Amino acid sequence: MFANPHQGASLSFQPRIRKGAFFDAAWRHGCRTFSVYNRTYISGAFADPVEEYWRVVRDVAIWPVMGERQVEVRGPDAAAFVQHLTPRDIRRCAPGRCLYALITAQDGGVLSDPIILQLAEDRFWLSTSDCDLELWAKGVAAGTGFDVTIRDAGVSVVQVQGPKSPRLMAGLLGETILDLAYFGMARADFAGRTLIVTRTGWSGEIGYEIYLEDADLGDALFDALLQAGRALGAAPGSVNQARRIEAGLLSWGADMTPEETPYELGLGRLVDLDATPDFIGKAALRRLAARPPRRRATGLFVDGPPMPPNEEPWPLTVAGRPAGRLTSLAHSPRLERTIAIGLVDAALAEPGTRMEVETWTGPRIATATPLPFLPKRQSGDVREMCAAEAR
Amino acid sequence: MFANPHQGASLSFQPRIRKGAFFDAAWRHGCRTFSVYNRTYISGAFADPVEEYWRVVRDVAIWPVMGERQVEVRGPDAAAFVQHLTPRDIRRCAPGRCLYALITAQDGGVLSDPIILQLAEDRFWLSTSDCDLELWAKGVAAGTGFDVTIRDAGVSVVQVQGPKSPRLMAGLLGETILDLAYFGMARADFAGRTLIVTRTGWSGEIGYEIYLEDADLGDALFDALLQAGRALGAAPGSVNQARRIEAGLLSWGADMTPEETPYELGLGRLVDLDATPDFIGKAALRRLAARPPRRRATGLFVDGPPMPPNEEPWPLTVAGRPAGRLTSLAHSPRLERTIAIGLVDAALAEPGTRMEVETWTGPRIATATPLPFLPKRQSGDVREMCAAEAR
Repeated sequence: MFANPHQGASLSFQPRIRKGAFFDAAWRHGCRTFSVYNRTYISGAFADPVEEYWRVVRDVAIWPVMGERQVEVRGPDAAAFVQHLTPRDIRRCAPGRCLYALITAQDGGVLSDPIILQLAEDRFWLSTSDCDLELWAKGVAAGTGFDVTIRDAGVSVVQVQGPKSPRLMAGLLGETILDLAYFGMARADFAGRTLIVTRTGWSGEIGYEIYLEDADLGDALFDALLQAGRALGAAPGSVNQARRIEAGLLSWGADMTPEETPYELGLGRLVDLDATPDFIGKAALRRLAARPPRRRATGLFVDGPPMPPNEEPWPLTVAGRPAGRLTSLAHSPRLERTIAIGLVDAALAEPGTRMEVETWTGPRIATATPLPFLPKRQSGDVREMCAAEAR
Repeated sequence: MFANPHQGASLSFQPRIRKGAFFDAAWRHGCRTFSVYNRTYISGAFADPVEEYWRVVRDVAIWPVMGERQVEVRGPDAAAFVQHLTPRDIRRCAPGRCLYALITAQDGGVLSDPIILQLAEDRFWLSTSDCDLELWAKGVAAGTGFDVTIRDAGVSVVQVQGPKSPRLMAGLLGETILDLAYFGMARADFAGRTLIVTRTGWSGEIGYEIYLEDADLGDALFDALLQAGRALGAAPGSVNQARRIEAGLLSWGADMTPEETPYELGLGRLVDLDATPDFIGKAALRRLAARPPRRRATGLFVDGPPMPPNEEPWPLTVAGRPAGRLTSLAHSPRLERTIAIGLVDAALAEPGTRMEVETWTGPRIATATPLPFLPKRQSGDVREMCAAEAR
């Protein structure tokens, strides 16, 4: 395969970038590639991405995604304030539940797509994508009268993802963890301290996220997870781009930015215009909802041999005219094709539309296809699955 | 020298991180080390840091600091809004001038320390440190009635720093650039387009920053700078940590964070409590100004052989009791000593106070000393300097 010419560039470590609680464990277990997410190191691949792909699809993978910061909103007005930030009706949430939601700007653009965890009546975590959501929330609070305290909660997240993740989690934290429904939340004991666990994740597979407040336990928790997963084929890894693109999971900063609206991204279901009181962006979204979006996020099959992922948006054209941009790309081991996500003129999002994309090695044909490429398999009853697997 | 154990870790390039206009030029000229600053790649060292140190101290260096994003504030209320964000009296600024300022939170903590460029009566750029100042500004605007438009201006910055930078700049852009006073601003023609130039920079030496709006000119501008500097010993490089620590320049995210107040950082001169109308943090800063700060930023000499820079804050103790933290460290080629910046209990900032610091290789002695270690040499009349040099 044609190699990415930038491969092998070094990362300069600097004290202004934060290390999460699992940095040392990731390093100790062989991670030598990192990126930066929310001013925090996030581990890149531990092994070949294809090996990591099969692990999360067939077995279970442990991903130290430390850059996924938790913005805590606390105080008497916490619920009203969080509702002010999001077009999703947060009454769908409840203490001990979580919710996928968007944060929108005044013009309806998408500033972030966090999981919102409701820890208590008056306490929320916004588990943010790669944007300084803490500053947005603090800025909004500074200009309004809500009685809230906002801070980065200093939490590090590790994701345990894959069909055998329920068995791993039950082995480490006890069988009651299997009661967790999709988007459920639980507290669990570990080494005398309390962990927050949600049944969520970024693989499209069954999975869990563990939120560690006690950074000093990072090493112990990571090793305990590996130990609990040893017989299940568990290994550390990083977010698998092929799997998340197959599942149609959009990456904030790449596939969605503040320039895009929820409707363009196919995320209109996260906008509850009628159920919610005023939130930032409501007037703009009401206008946008009334007309068809100009652009649409779509899947793309890209012809030709495998190639390294894009490092920036790649222009799409039809007959030489701008048609949009390809935003994420990977080779799917199961589909044995190069798959991608793009943002294209609405008329071109029709499945089967052929475009040209400018790549590392020159133009290729990209053909629109619906998202997801392969279904998500993350909902469902995990006790039933475990039982079926044991049979 | 004992090597940093993380040296050689790779950077994972991802489409959610932006490439500035000089990325390709930096790569072409041999840069193979990068960090991430404001979701944008920033070039690390091109050569040995000691070589780069002498270049900026004696000759002239060209630094593609692309992560220094410009947050544009534009509209009828632009000046009032910028004043609402900062404790610095922005009447000190004027169209065609710039100003070093702090952005403070409601509790007086430092959110950013931008250069504020006033491009016109109703148009400002906040040249931000490594924090998503755009989101803070937009959040504040969303909650208040100011008539402003805020956006990332899509600008890439290259710094030209060192005693021979005036000659380089005059060679490329014409002799009138020598009229620029410290913190002055000018427009200059390049390839038929307009560049913004300020006499500022992050070296403590005479220097300039060039703000490029036309990303397609990145390659041409970078090469033209190198060409204009060839006879002066110019070469591409990265921000030199030894030189900026010598000069006492604080790095946001490392030496200052939202946990610190301007008074703790020795930046009380940037707070104009009496001259400014209400700004965010004013009440808190008035309270803080009335009592001595609990902590102080200080210089530190660290005993023993040279060692690699810290990657995270290092704890400082006196007789085993917490005394603060060391935040940045480098070896000064001129002082031939290891120098550092720390944030310590106010009583311990007295020059000569000895502390213990926990380092890569175990405890070392750190001795408080005033900042800067060596003077800044960035103000003064550059025409006089050029004339003196020519004699």
